[in-house]
Amino acid sequence: MYYCRLYEILLFFFSLVLMMTNINSTTLSVENQSSSIHLRAPSFSGIYHTNLLSHSPSQILNKNENEMKLISKQNQLNPCNNGSYIKTNGTTCGLKEIMIGRCNEYQYIKRGLYLSNTTEIKNCTKLYELFESAARYKSYCNTNMSTYESYFQYALDGVHVINRALFWSGTYGLAHAYSNRGINYITLEDTLAAAMADGLLWCGKENDTEGFDYVSCPRNCKDNIWADDAFWGLASRTYAQKVAGEIYLVLNGSRTDGHPSFRNGSYFTTYELPNLQKTGQYRVTKMIVLLMHAPDQKVIEKCGEKSLRSLETIIRGYNIDYACKDDPEELILIMCSDQWEARECQIARKVLRQQWNIKVYGKSNTIYHSISFLFLFSIIINYFL
Amino acid sequence: MYYCRLYEILLFFFSLVLMMTNINSTTLSVENQSSSIHLRAPSFSGIYHTNLLSHSPSQILNKNENEMKLISKQNQLNPCNNGSYIKTNGTTCGLKEIMIGRCNEYQYIKRGLYLSNTTEIKNCTKLYELFESAARYKSYCNTNMSTYESYFQYALDGVHVINRALFWSGTYGLAHAYSNRGINYITLEDTLAAAMADGLLWCGKENDTEGFDYVSCPRNCKDNIWADDAFWGLASRTYAQKVAGEIYLVLNGSRTDGHPSFRNGSYFTTYELPNLQKTGQYRVTKMIVLLMHAPDQKVIEKCGEKSLRSLETIIRGYNIDYACKDDPEELILIMCSDQWEARECQIARKVLRQQWNIKVYGKSNTIYHSISFLFLFSIIINYFL
Repeated sequence: MYYCRLYEILLFFFSLVLMMTNINSTTLSVENQSSSIHLRAPSFSGIYHTNLLSHSPSQILNKNENEMKLISKQNQLNPCNNGSYIKTNGTTCGLKEIMIGRCNEYQYIKRGLYLSNTTEIKNCTKLYELFESAARYKSYCNTNMSTYESYFQYALDGVHVINRALFWSGTYGLAHAYSNRGINYITLEDTLAAAMADGLLWCGKENDTEGFDYVSCPRNCKDNIWADDAFWGLASRTYAQKVAGEIYLVLNGSRTDGHPSFRNGSYFTTYELPNLQKTGQYRVTKMIVLLMHAPDQKVIEKCGEKSLRSLETIIRGYNIDYACKDDPEELILIMCSDQWEARECQIARKVLRQQWNIKVYGKSNTIYHSISFLFLFSIIINYFL
Repeated sequence: MYYCRLYEILLFFFSLVLMMTNINSTTLSVENQSSSIHLRAPSFSGIYHTNLLSHSPSQILNKNENEMKLISKQNQLNPCNNGSYIKTNGTTCGLKEIMIGRCNEYQYIKRGLYLSNTTEIKNCTKLYELFESAARYKSYCNTNMSTYESYFQYALDGVHVINRALFWSGTYGLAHAYSNRGINYITLEDTLAAAMADGLLWCGKENDTEGFDYVSCPRNCKDNIWADDAFWGLASRTYAQKVAGEIYLVLNGSRTDGHPSFRNGSYFTTYELPNLQKTGQYRVTKMIVLLMHAPDQKVIEKCGEKSLRSLETIIRGYNIDYACKDDPEELILIMCSDQWEARECQIARKVLRQQWNIKVYGKSNTIYHSISFLFLFSIIINYFL
């Protein structure tokens, strides 16, 4: 064990030395490259929000903070009927147009991705009306887990997600980068009803001509703790009831907020886990946990440890098979794409640079030659010993 | 030179040996991993269409081929007013709703990404009406480069893309993965007017109640070669007029179709290059070419060679600075994310796996120990010699 740690420390130290010396020599050896080019790192921050615990609309919207001034509660004019943008904590401007547009796009443009096996088209106007009749002119704090029932019923009618469902908890950005908008896997947010509302904020308003409050939505409702979960709680529950076969769950094994990877109170634990189908034709047969450890972060839990053991017990109690995998490569790559400066990602990045230098210029720098030689040498030794 | 080739061949050979021996031992050393887990490769195919030469809507749509039956020309019913999906070669169903929805989403939701410096909101209904009045009830083959002028005028009024514009030719998917929907760079398709229409197909129809042909759009118009470029040609030209400062161009240095990286007849060469601003406050000061060589593909052209030299001459003739960079790392990573099985990507992938094994289990297999030891050793030798 100490033996390995020593390597790790030495590797880190030398990768630093390497960065300071070797990278320069690589760049200088390439004649055609302008040394004055500074590219932006390929940030995936727009789709990679680690530790975004829930997908409640307010939290997603809060990621979009910018310099726009907040409208005061006193200004009761509709900030959407205005030629200029005013940031509010109220209902998203263009809510109706955005939802209807997304519904059409989902069914007519993206359909090759999710819907190739079905030809049924849901009526987007009807779907929006089911949503609107649940929310508009109604006080936000009076909504509950049954408010949006007919909306989800209609949207998810006939849908079964078999062997492709991906759940997430504490890994919003990573899980969505991996699901790739339904191409690889299907998250809740890749289904019609949820996609229509993802990232939007709304709250109804009684006795109001608009029926929605565009100025300010309540942060929480004292007398009704369910109001905040009325939409996304039901969305999660309904989705969990529609998944079948092998399902995937992406968890965060290096949480820095003190929470365990599998925690009480998450959307997954509260609304999804208890609602998986345990029997019947469309039952869940296996849960595969993908436990990720972020670059430059400590490993807090591994497969088979602590909260993962609790999760396994629950799943096996449901008579569902269970497997857990620490850091599948496919997900490491996505994490490193977002954080190539991280310690664990740097050597791989250098290796790629060297590979392309050989590919394009048929040469590399001296250090690489020695590395590759010793690399080969070590393999030969190990192979025959 | 021969010395390097020898390394390359040996490296390839031994990386194969390594794959067959070493990967197994890595997996077996990890107790908690279920060996029966087969994950999908993280395909970025939805956003990575190499060799998708132009962004004309028909070509993008053709990527979405699926099993749906094609409606026959004889069936003149509107296939959109139907409860089931019928694939056609005509106008996209929900065209109006999708465009208006995207316009609202662009301005109210995504605004933090592109629009944080402006508060002006364009009227989405007006914008769609400008579009519709140009296309609806008009014969597709009568459109030309002035048809959509007022649409683009209104949408791009007041817009200047400074130091962030990214052009592409033969690299649609890669360039868009890199621009990351306007977060890193801004492509034409990340601007309002183009985003509203990206991936959609439409053609007007005279003497028709709908005014659009939802059944079939003409493939080409004999008497009017400009009809196909009426929208995207003008979009490209208008965008090129709006970019300033340092601009980027992603080209494909390993085209397999026989075309040079910088070719006559592309949208870039025809509509963008000649319309860059060469003088004034918003002039282009520098063009930075990013020349990519795809994994597992031959290198056909490098910076400073063949068609790249022609491009440099044109650019310098405009009194614009020029730089060219072969394979920036940021873009190599995106290419490898899509093709980790490619020869040039495999070693880096293995390195990442090893790094995470050390991180999570504090150990790795014997081969890795020797590699890291020899790696260090080689660096020390090179550092002091």
